[in-house]
Amino acid sequence: MKAYQHMKKEELLVLKKELEAKLENIKSQGMQLDMSRGKPGEDQLALSMEMLDVVNSSSDMNNEAGIDTRNYGQVDGLPEAKRLLAQMADTSPEKAIVFGNASLNVMFDTISRSMTHGVMGSTPWSKLDNPVKFLCPVPGYDRHFSITEYFGIEMIPVEMTKDGPDMDTVEKLVREDEAVKGIWCVPKYSNPQGYTYSPETVRRFANLEPKAKDFRIFWDNAYAVHHLYPEPKRQDQLPDILALCEETGKPDMVYEFVSTSKVTFPGSGISMMAASEGNRKEILRHLSVQTIGHDKINQLRHARFLKDMDGVREQMNKQGELTLIKFKIVWEVLERELSGLEIGSWEYPRGGYFISFEALEGCAKAIVAKAKESGLTLTPAGASFPYGKDPKDSNIRIAPTYPSLDELKLAGEAFVLCVKLVSIDKILKSK
Amino acid sequence: MKAYQHMKKEELLVLKKELEAKLENIKSQGMQLDMSRGKPGEDQLALSMEMLDVVNSSSDMNNEAGIDTRNYGQVDGLPEAKRLLAQMADTSPEKAIVFGNASLNVMFDTISRSMTHGVMGSTPWSKLDNPVKFLCPVPGYDRHFSITEYFGIEMIPVEMTKDGPDMDTVEKLVREDEAVKGIWCVPKYSNPQGYTYSPETVRRFANLEPKAKDFRIFWDNAYAVHHLYPEPKRQDQLPDILALCEETGKPDMVYEFVSTSKVTFPGSGISMMAASEGNRKEILRHLSVQTIGHDKINQLRHARFLKDMDGVREQMNKQGELTLIKFKIVWEVLERELSGLEIGSWEYPRGGYFISFEALEGCAKAIVAKAKESGLTLTPAGASFPYGKDPKDSNIRIAPTYPSLDELKLAGEAFVLCVKLVSIDKILKSK
Repeated sequence: MKAYQHMKKEELLVLKKELEAKLENIKSQGMQLDMSRGKPGEDQLALSMEMLDVVNSSSDMNNEAGIDTRNYGQVDGLPEAKRLLAQMADTSPEKAIVFGNASLNVMFDTISRSMTHGVMGSTPWSKLDNPVKFLCPVPGYDRHFSITEYFGIEMIPVEMTKDGPDMDTVEKLVREDEAVKGIWCVPKYSNPQGYTYSPETVRRFANLEPKAKDFRIFWDNAYAVHHLYPEPKRQDQLPDILALCEETGKPDMVYEFVSTSKVTFPGSGISMMAASEGNRKEILRHLSVQTIGHDKINQLRHARFLKDMDGVREQMNKQGELTLIKFKIVWEVLERELSGLEIGSWEYPRGGYFISFEALEGCAKAIVAKAKESGLTLTPAGASFPYGKDPKDSNIRIAPTYPSLDELKLAGEAFVLCVKLVSIDKILKSK
Repeated sequence: MKAYQHMKKEELLVLKKELEAKLENIKSQGMQLDMSRGKPGEDQLALSMEMLDVVNSSSDMNNEAGIDTRNYGQVDGLPEAKRLLAQMADTSPEKAIVFGNASLNVMFDTISRSMTHGVMGSTPWSKLDNPVKFLCPVPGYDRHFSITEYFGIEMIPVEMTKDGPDMDTVEKLVREDEAVKGIWCVPKYSNPQGYTYSPETVRRFANLEPKAKDFRIFWDNAYAVHHLYPEPKRQDQLPDILALCEETGKPDMVYEFVSTSKVTFPGSGISMMAASEGNRKEILRHLSVQTIGHDKINQLRHARFLKDMDGVREQMNKQGELTLIKFKIVWEVLERELSGLEIGSWEYPRGGYFISFEALEGCAKAIVAKAKESGLTLTPAGASFPYGKDPKDSNIRIAPTYPSLDELKLAGEAFVLCVKLVSIDKILKSK
């Protein structure tokens, strides 16, 4: 296919008419689709229905250590839940604290606690003269950025590469600026690009020399086991940063987060923070004021359903199979309709929940707006950047899992039409 | 029986020997009992086992409004869960936000949010020049006091009466001191005394004229439906403070909390805050940064198991029956062994989880220590007071629910022996 930029104005105008008619046709079908969030599809939810049976009225409600899971107590979680979640994050259970249904909430609380009480004896962040800063690899996860924005933390974007964040910049900023207290990371199958940090990047993380003693890496291993392919050699690997930080003598520098949100049921899962002994002690001291404990029956339910890493792998192979079908539908339409046009590029991640799309500069907002008009809701353009501001206005996050296959096919067609139309408008302006 | 103070020194010394021998005898049986917390007994936990079956692999996972409870969303909770919890608190569902497994956590988060972000536009409490103050009716709930202490909030004890807190003092402090931002209340079957605020007290609460615009009543209706007796006329009633605050034109002045912790499974329940439209809006705005949503499957489970207020009543009649048996065991031994001795008094609440015991002044710590020596763990003396300081050192909170009946009988015998021995020591010193 011919690149749009090499087409004559007249050709583009004719093409535009054609495409507009096609989009009108889709609109007239009354499409109402939401691809804005990484929500599992119904087929994926069905994979966990049996979990609802493993704890029932005739179950032994004592856990493996004889704890009655129905009563109060055990604020750091059941041993079997620690083991399961630690395995998912490829780290050790003694570092784990099991929390409630959402790791996002744990991250929020961690920052909230740092604001009001500091970190291991440091000045509470809210009492510092200058606002705290966080490094934000971009594009990244919008809900991370919402948390730091909420607490008035200044966000500094750092460019993502296929190997992870630009580590030269990270190292420099962390080393030179005491106000830099944290960095948001989705180290495996990153949101939205699906990049996995290289072993070298992870090693450099473990070797950071922060000026601030209370600097922490927020290692959100959200897609730890969320592979698209069952073959181990087609799955990304990520070193255990907690172990590496121990080796470099900086065991306290990182908090790792993991959850079952997209393993079983989103919203009804269990979550974990893994951290050094020092961090764990500190956090448990605070946690014991905040709550008497998390939902242990749900911990038991997860542990009995998923059992161990083999169980997790089996479940995630099924999840991956269903996800891959949807990713392939999106890839197919992108390739068929956009290859060679030079108006956009996209990623081929091996896991995670998103296909990141790079439109021509200055086109993302207009594409999302045009899609919305046609009945297709996408993640707002810019959402993957701090303060919602994509400097190039080019990144769009595609979340293919929630729609049904037929809906997704239609949504894909609508999406590429919007990309084409907005791109033509941009190119026409420059002609 | 003869009051100890009227006994001669010699008589007391003889008696002491006897009692010591009896306590030794109990000790030698190797008793290891924990009556420190309001934990339900196994018989009570068994009452909710069928709840584990009402949502299973063949269930319709859509709620009454067609929401798939397995997926993300619905941050303020399912309508049926709102309705259920609002009914328990005798207030209206449109005021409800449903949260996770613990209302204590909701209270913690509410204060944390007020520290970092203020209340409806007020200065964040952490940014105020003077520390925030909370009024603390005493004796009260230790975990409330832990939260305010944790945030460096100055706690001002206010005397409890059988009608609720001393309202003259509350009204004056709230009206005169802008630093007073809140008051902790357990208005029904209060922890630990089991007092229920009188209608007049509740009316006075709704008529408070706080100097601080961001003053809030923390109305922890923890024992809303936790009656000991099934007959309505033997159950305490509490007016709906939210409705009263609307009538007095102060709808925003109160947050009400309720949970199913001691209705179904502690730690695996659901909780609610009920508040004015203004408060709800503000809280939901913050909450949507903190989390994507709470565990809706557990909300569905509770709604389908308890159904409605009739279901709650049925469940709580069973809970009350089991609790009452244990309260009666404690009352029996207190009456049999302590009546007429003038070394202690105790309450006869009609609901809640505790029997509050008043020892002679200066004796509570020693009694708890002696019990501990004998293998009986009680709530630490002073725990029911801010900073753990009971000025009279006389209040002991007895939590009868957790031990089995046999254990409880033994624990009761041990307890009265400890009370007698410590009281004799005190009286001997004055002879």
